[in-house]
Amino acid sequence: MSNELRSTELRIAVLGVGMMGADHVRRITGAIAGARVAVINDYDSSKAEALAATIPGCRVVGDPIDAIADPDVDAVLLATPGPTHEKQLLACIEHGKPVMCEKPLTTDVETSLAVVKAEAELGKKLIQVGFMRRFDTEYEQLKALIVAGELGRPLVVHCAHRNPAVPPHFDSAMIVKDSLVHEVDVTRFLLDEEITSVQIIKPSANPAAPQGLADPQIALFSTESGKHVDAEVFVTTGVAYEVRTEVVGELGSAMIGLDVGLVRKTAPGTWGGQITPSFVERFGQAYDSEIQRWVDAVVAGAETGNYIDGPGAWDGYAAAAVCAAGVKSLESGERVAVDMVQRSSIAGA
Amino acid sequence: MSNELRSTELRIAVLGVGMMGADHVRRITGAIAGARVAVINDYDSSKAEALAATIPGCRVVGDPIDAIADPDVDAVLLATPGPTHEKQLLACIEHGKPVMCEKPLTTDVETSLAVVKAEAELGKKLIQVGFMRRFDTEYEQLKALIVAGELGRPLVVHCAHRNPAVPPHFDSAMIVKDSLVHEVDVTRFLLDEEITSVQIIKPSANPAAPQGLADPQIALFSTESGKHVDAEVFVTTGVAYEVRTEVVGELGSAMIGLDVGLVRKTAPGTWGGQITPSFVERFGQAYDSEIQRWVDAVVAGAETGNYIDGPGAWDGYAAAAVCAAGVKSLESGERVAVDMVQRSSIAGA
Amino acid sequence: MSNELRSTELRIAVLGVGMMGADHVRRITGAIAGARVAVINDYDSSKAEALAATIPGCRVVGDPIDAIADPDVDAVLLATPGPTHEKQLLACIEHGKPVMCEKPLTTDVETSLAVVKAEAELGKKLIQVGFMRRFDTEYEQLKALIVAGELGRPLVVHCAHRNPAVPPHFDSAMIVKDSLVHEVDVTRFLLDEEITSVQIIKPSANPAAPQGLADPQIALFSTESGKHVDAEVFVTTGVAYEVRTEVVGELGSAMIGLDVGLVRKTAPGTWGGQITPSFVERFGQAYDSEIQRWVDAVVAGAETGNYIDGPGAWDGYAAAAVCAAGVKSLESGERVAVDMVQRSSIAGA
Amino acid sequence: MSNELRSTELRIAVLGVGMMGADHVRRITGAIAGARVAVINDYDSSKAEALAATIPGCRVVGDPIDAIADPDVDAVLLATPGPTHEKQLLACIEHGKPVMCEKPLTTDVETSLAVVKAEAELGKKLIQVGFMRRFDTEYEQLKALIVAGELGRPLVVHCAHRNPAVPPHFDSAMIVKDSLVHEVDVTRFLLDEEITSVQIIKPSANPAAPQGLADPQIALFSTESGKHVDAEVFVTTGVAYEVRTEVVGELGSAMIGLDVGLVRKTAPGTWGGQITPSFVERFGQAYDSEIQRWVDAVVAGAETGNYIDGPGAWDGYAAAAVCAAGVKSLESGERVAVDMVQRSSIAGA
Repeated sequence: MSNELRSTELRIAVLGVGMMGADHVRRITGAIAGARVAVINDYDSSKAEALAATIPGCRVVGDPIDAIADPDVDAVLLATPGPTHEKQLLACIEHGKPVMCEKPLTTDVETSLAVVKAEAELGKKLIQVGFMRRFDTEYEQLKALIVAGELGRPLVVHCAHRNPAVPPHFDSAMIVKDSLVHEVDVTRFLLDEEITSVQIIKPSANPAAPQGLADPQIALFSTESGKHVDAEVFVTTGVAYEVRTEVVGELGSAMIGLDVGLVRKTAPGTWGGQITPSFVERFGQAYDSEIQRWVDAVVAGAETGNYIDGPGAWDGYAAAAVCAAGVKSLESGERVAVDMVQRSSIAGA
Repeated sequence: MSNELRSTELRIAVLGVGMMGADHVRRITGAIAGARVAVINDYDSSKAEALAATIPGCRVVGDPIDAIADPDVDAVLLATPGPTHEKQLLACIEHGKPVMCEKPLTTDVETSLAVVKAEAELGKKLIQVGFMRRFDTEYEQLKALIVAGELGRPLVVHCAHRNPAVPPHFDSAMIVKDSLVHEVDVTRFLLDEEITSVQIIKPSANPAAPQGLADPQIALFSTESGKHVDAEVFVTTGVAYEVRTEVVGELGSAMIGLDVGLVRKTAPGTWGGQITPSFVERFGQAYDSEIQRWVDAVVAGAETGNYIDGPGAWDGYAAAAVCAAGVKSLESGERVAVDMVQRSSIAGA
Repeated sequence: MSNELRSTELRIAVLGVGMMGADHVRRITGAIAGARVAVINDYDSSKAEALAATIPGCRVVGDPIDAIADPDVDAVLLATPGPTHEKQLLACIEHGKPVMCEKPLTTDVETSLAVVKAEAELGKKLIQVGFMRRFDTEYEQLKALIVAGELGRPLVVHCAHRNPAVPPHFDSAMIVKDSLVHEVDVTRFLLDEEITSVQIIKPSANPAAPQGLADPQIALFSTESGKHVDAEVFVTTGVAYEVRTEVVGELGSAMIGLDVGLVRKTAPGTWGGQITPSFVERFGQAYDSEIQRWVDAVVAGAETGNYIDGPGAWDGYAAAAVCAAGVKSLESGERVAVDMVQRSSIAGA
Repeated sequence: MSNELRSTELRIAVLGVGMMGADHVRRITGAIAGARVAVINDYDSSKAEALAATIPGCRVVGDPIDAIADPDVDAVLLATPGPTHEKQLLACIEHGKPVMCEKPLTTDVETSLAVVKAEAELGKKLIQVGFMRRFDTEYEQLKALIVAGELGRPLVVHCAHRNPAVPPHFDSAMIVKDSLVHEVDVTRFLLDEEITSVQIIKPSANPAAPQGLADPQIALFSTESGKHVDAEVFVTTGVAYEVRTEVVGELGSAMIGLDVGLVRKTAPGTWGGQITPSFVERFGQAYDSEIQRWVDAVVAGAETGNYIDGPGAWDGYAAAAVCAAGVKSLESGERVAVDMVQRSSIAGA
């Protein structure tokens, strides 16, 4: 990519702007630093046009392979239907374009292997697959705990993956390929070894599930070194989205997804988690949101005249007045009235 | 600001690049979409130069007022020492530049009021103050609960604010002005009314606190409508960073900061919180991190040849192989061995 | 007391069988080993008669002082109205009878002091006051943590005491004398020093509270060594019964009453509690209930012919059959069908 | 049993006073109302004599069948080794004595069935088996939730059963028969149907487990109606005692054993539990302990002169003094000093 481009922003082509792809377009445009959506492609060209029109400097390219090959595209985000992935991934390899591919890599084992081989022949890793749980803070903490040896050697992993509902076309095999596949990657990520056998148990089905859907399912994995993993996948709970993973090791266990952060149980027989060590971890998200929303407000303010999205000067003044009273009370120990002007006495405050 | 600029990025001048300012520079550069650091100013010009050199298109301006006035600066982020704020804020108002001002607004009540009045005369809100807790997810949830009336009318607020340690120069009044000030803003934010009196109680001090430091302190606030707020501020706990707020209302109470998300206690006598409704909320952070880190890896890869920071094609293939076995087991109910090639058989995979 | 009596059971006179006293009668009769209710007294003699008739070997004594003096009474449980306590306690001292006195000791400071002095003159401690929180497992754990020095020197205590509702005659002073009094004793129990000053803050009242009731109230205590205690008492929450106490010490803090057992926050920045060390602690209550309910069932069974209140022989057989299959599967690793007869094939099983 | 006996106490023969039996002797003597240990039997007669000597009115009977047949024995508690159970249970049936039998019922399926048939022929249920979890508060709550239909039809149950360590003689089959047997009964109790197949999975063993011990083990149960149950049993964790059960139903899930009481996840996507409705539930244990310990102190006090085990008259006086100051402050809103005499001024207080 050109020096000029690198000094500004990565130009990404997003292929496929259905729910997932459109979400990534919004993400790159509104939340990701150092990148922008330069090209959009979708088999529904009017949808592509409509979305591109909302993004400065973004255009539509009608053919996905042309979009990949485009000299003004530095990298590709693939959110097209699975059956098109093989051809598009091979094109990315051919043109040397880094590609972020939403799962699945391809729709069957053979074509997945072909893609692996094509990339291996190139001798350069260009393909990333969208197993996003590896980037989730709780999974990262759990992995770090294992790597640090704090649970000892992992022995057993228990997973639960629950959705309130699924679309009408969801069938029993999709529970394996679309839902369980996340537990497959979580297992491989946490244990760092391959899965060698699988067994799916079908308990009597949820009466509320669509006729014929084997839901819930219990999956049992064995790994190369004989570790046991079980995963409940239940996609018609009617409740909410729940993802839970527990690793049981020789020195203790840890669980995430309990709505209470990572909870670890280790000798001497204690349970609990870590308190945030400093304001950086506790309020990092708040600082990011504060500045992002301020930037958005300022940009919008060029037209509306409202340049703030948060506490203003009055709030700073009020805090100063209260703290001044506080410092006085610190000396006397007595209750001190706060001395403030009436806000209404200042027109426009 | 020019049309061209608006179509790309907001150009921000960061004034003061101590710990807080430098952190904001990193934030704007690496995590905030739609903005870039165009100008850096610091009274220590070599520090400013060193930081600016790491940011494409960023330059140093030696005088803070010049930086504010610079025609290629769209907005200002003020992270300079408090005593300089008044003059710099007035300059922002004079030049019509939106400004994000780290707390405090100014160092005393009179100058804070002067700034409020100057902005009011302009008739346009340009100044935002860095009370970042208002952007924290848990505080936003707590505020939303109050606004929705789910706790009824708030009656009492309990706050705790604990730091493991503070720098040597921290004195008793700074506990009020630097630490308690956050509880001041939280109170005003949550209750939406002004504080009318303050009382500071000094229990016998923590033996581990520096000689002469009144720590912990208990602050009592009364508000316009007679609500009671108490806040424990304890900055030498030796433990970790803990911020807790509980609102007790006529219909129930809710607490944040317990390491378990927002916990709400309401009739019919239940405690608990909300399960994440969908993967969007549960894994939004993971998607953001996934794409940001991929973008960073691709940009860095132009030089290193490593374009991925996460699961690669092999991981996609392995998942496909396991799921294929899973689908077979779904039919048979039996254990099915996973059929995979050896990774080592493919050079470069 | 006679040797014969000691070898069997303590004979208790219960004075006052309103809600609290009647509850104690049930407790002594059905849950306390080594004691029985020998005498009941109440100003409403028909109520006393009705209750005594349900208890083997229990009789009514019409005058409370006679009941105390009765030679077949070894000890006294006082659950009469507060204004009668002074005279009855002095009678217990006179007759050398141990007495368990529901709070308050007496209804004012002077008479309380008189009772203290009378007992001191006797030179033998006969009077116990019904501050039952000292016997609550969580308070015992919190006290043990403090005594063991694990929180360092306690500095601050926060209490909350919430009731869903109170009877119509409850007035603002009763919130102090009937509700806050528990926090008074908790403070003295945990800190092991006297309270030297009290301040009651009345925030604007809960709109749902009866007209004129100052509810909630915030109490502030200072202790001899300058420790600070605050307590929110709120008796018309409409939610449930909540009692929470947090002790903040120089080495960390611990809280009880969060519905999650004792939670402790100490260096190195961790939160959590203790996992039950063995089945003895985990299921001690279950063993007690199991045996108590079995005893009750056997006693009742003399008339009904039903001698069990729990799992029976069939449940033992079924467990044996499943475990036999389990042991076979342990060897083979395969699924093993459980071999059991049909329950219906055995008439009466 | 005689009328006289019924009006006082159930006379129990405890057979076998090893760890479990001796614990039951202590329980009946010190915590169970309405019963006493009348007879002790153990193959080690000196152990039996030593224990009996500590219990008023208790004697040793040398032969277990004689103890069962003894006319002054109303009921039997069997804590002898499993191989003797069959003969002793049949004797209980023969003599019509209710019997509480520690698990296992007998040591194999055939003899268990024989016992079931013998009791069925008698036409009267005399035998209770010691599956004590059915009496645990959390299991009772979980069962109640299921029975009330609040989780809908149960579909899947997940269990975990972890011990820190086991005695040296513990072998792989004992993990099934001694540990997993509890999950067998929990399954049958919660689901109210029989288990029809079992599969035991042996992951690679915990390196810290004794050589040859297959630990952990994963058990899979299917039930009559096709429900799935999995149970991890892991008896060498080195951590603590953990027992966890989760029931996943068509309307939601509930888990116990998380150290936070029962946690329920149901629509509309909430997690949490119930707050204790009143002081009766919150402090019931405290009241029981208070009175039991007071009874024990009074009984012991006949010799030591110390009749209280808890707060005394001074504590009642101190509370009165603090509350008097509180009532004054309630009126004035000001801090009021507590007016108390010095404790040391009253000799003996």
